[in-house]
Amino acid sequence: MSYILTLNAGSSSLKYAVYRDGAAPELRAVGQVDRIGSEAAHLVLKREGETETRELGAADHARAVEAILDICTPHMQGAPVAGVGHRIVHGGTLFDRPAVLNADILSALHRLVPLAPLHQPHNLAAVRAAMSAFPDAVQVGCFDTAFHRSQPWVDDTFALPREYYDKGIRRYGFHGLSYDYITGELDRIDAEDHHRRTVVAHLGNGASMCAIKGGKSVASTMGFTALDGLPMGTRCGQLDPGVLLYLIAQEGMGHHQIRDLLYHKCGLLGLSGISNDMRELEASPRREAKEAIDYYVFRIRRELGGLAAAIGGLETLVFCGGIGENSALVRARVCEGMEWMGIAIDPEANAAGADVISTGAVTVRVIRTDEEGVIARAVSAALAA
Amino acid sequence: MSYILTLNAGSSSLKYAVYRDGAAPELRAVGQVDRIGSEAAHLVLKREGETETRELGAADHARAVEAILDICTPHMQGAPVAGVGHRIVHGGTLFDRPAVLNADILSALHRLVPLAPLHQPHNLAAVRAAMSAFPDAVQVGCFDTAFHRSQPWVDDTFALPREYYDKGIRRYGFHGLSYDYITGELDRIDAEDHHRRTVVAHLGNGASMCAIKGGKSVASTMGFTALDGLPMGTRCGQLDPGVLLYLIAQEGMGHHQIRDLLYHKCGLLGLSGISNDMRELEASPRREAKEAIDYYVFRIRRELGGLAAAIGGLETLVFCGGIGENSALVRARVCEGMEWMGIAIDPEANAAGADVISTGAVTVRVIRTDEEGVIARAVSAALAA
Repeated sequence: MSYILTLNAGSSSLKYAVYRDGAAPELRAVGQVDRIGSEAAHLVLKREGETETRELGAADHARAVEAILDICTPHMQGAPVAGVGHRIVHGGTLFDRPAVLNADILSALHRLVPLAPLHQPHNLAAVRAAMSAFPDAVQVGCFDTAFHRSQPWVDDTFALPREYYDKGIRRYGFHGLSYDYITGELDRIDAEDHHRRTVVAHLGNGASMCAIKGGKSVASTMGFTALDGLPMGTRCGQLDPGVLLYLIAQEGMGHHQIRDLLYHKCGLLGLSGISNDMRELEASPRREAKEAIDYYVFRIRRELGGLAAAIGGLETLVFCGGIGENSALVRARVCEGMEWMGIAIDPEANAAGADVISTGAVTVRVIRTDEEGVIARAVSAALAA
Repeated sequence: MSYILTLNAGSSSLKYAVYRDGAAPELRAVGQVDRIGSEAAHLVLKREGETETRELGAADHARAVEAILDICTPHMQGAPVAGVGHRIVHGGTLFDRPAVLNADILSALHRLVPLAPLHQPHNLAAVRAAMSAFPDAVQVGCFDTAFHRSQPWVDDTFALPREYYDKGIRRYGFHGLSYDYITGELDRIDAEDHHRRTVVAHLGNGASMCAIKGGKSVASTMGFTALDGLPMGTRCGQLDPGVLLYLIAQEGMGHHQIRDLLYHKCGLLGLSGISNDMRELEASPRREAKEAIDYYVFRIRRELGGLAAAIGGLETLVFCGGIGENSALVRARVCEGMEWMGIAIDPEANAAGADVISTGAVTVRVIRTDEEGVIARAVSAALAA
């Protein structure tokens, strides 16, 4: 018997999950280290209905991985962690599936840092920490971009001179682990294949949508970076490139200021001036909160129409991610007046967050996504290979 | 009897048209001054089936307007130019209709130069030249943004912090004179109002699309500047804002370099490496030409779905602009496989460029747009007021 650990590293957080390996990996514990990089890092472990917490003091990603090992080991009855799976935001054009990580691949992934400067370095820090803490384990990278490598050239490129495409300025798309999971679930629960043309709305703190045809990604709203497409908690989503030229020329803003603005001060937070959290906005009586939700919904609707056009119509619409799974309001507002596309939902089923909430020709589903499960299965497959 | 002159000034060109004023202004001549700013400016006048040309040598906008006055005067039988109408790209939030221009308004329009630095200065130079050449004429400004002022807030804003909206960073939209003309034509030719929900694709060297509901602009693909939305002859269209951050940080590009790239080296020209002219691309046997057209069509289709979603479905689709009016190939490719939206066209009617080319539930029309006619009518109305 052996265990699989999955790691999902952000700039100041490290989510993890522990699975017992087997034909289908079995989730045994989940947890998170928060405030990495500060003096007040702390760790949470949830297993068998109980929660343990530990204060770590000052901690980097390496210390965080050690702490995860410390807290999990007593529960593993001496069985080893045979594989560690890593969520890695960027696989560039190199990876259209998970990969067993070695020094060469790590170097290649490091060269992709300029494509995702805010995410990739933390992902790779977690890989290095795990290689040190689990020297005998197989390390597997699972890439948020991999699912989208099937996209045709027209959705992979921008209308820049062709050499920019060759240099790697492409619409990579992200949230691929989530789309991979949802695609698998649709195959499982809808064996008659009524989901040949599907749009998935992954609405979390990061948010994107993906048009999937015959199980393959055809188009998505996120492009070269995690800024594009839908507005998010604090990210701007779609933005006229002329706005950046204006901010530089007229507002005198530099690269770092603009980056900080677009990643951290826009989206729901910027529009509302209140919060990046949809739950807070839904609860707020203020006009600005309502308007931020209006905008969020409007952009989802526009992308839904555009993505359906990319795959020649729609048979299934899936909501997932924190907001997609939990906000009946957002789901209702997105679907309102979309009868022209065959979308109609049952208010009670929607309010209850039922698996299927539609009454129209398009099947509208709410599916709890499971990116960690996708990673664990990739590790399990690598261990069995 | 009196005449109306319309002026449409670009950076190095000045298009003009001469109308005899009346209940419906009557077009008498059209022409263009080209290569303004060089040593080889020249003027063309077309009237009654004949073409006159004149070499002007070095000429700025003022000299160009004088030359237009010179060449037209002999044909006016002593009747005055009572009004001059100007296409002005940017009316900001100030104008939702044409305006009689005076010194105060010119100052206000000058303050909008940062919003359209490549277009507005030339428009205003033509106004000043016309005020000098026709001191007794009424000068009327017709704004490409005005038609879109009806757009709801959700389509007028980006997901930036709210103060940016208040500072004027909005989705103004452009090509409003064309959309105004098309809307009027639809009212005239389709009195039974089967065009309550219309998308107009204005596909010229600049290109945008507009969703119109009940005659009012609801959403368009151009945003803050004329860069956004569809790819164009040399402009990029929709672009992940992260691409600009990358060009600055990784390629070391400055503001002027990026502006030059996005306005002048992208779009059909950048993707094909061959030409910004759709006719040349259609005639080219090269793969890059075909791919540039593929991309152009793909983006139009995505926007068509998105704009239909913004107005709750589609009853009428209109193609206009140089490419929209003349490229049967582009029209056919845009409509291909769009039966799910009720779009189907008759290949023969399309090849012939018939007024109505559809066979499906959505009426698909080809309409020759007439921005000059919209300007002339605005001047005529100002003269009658």
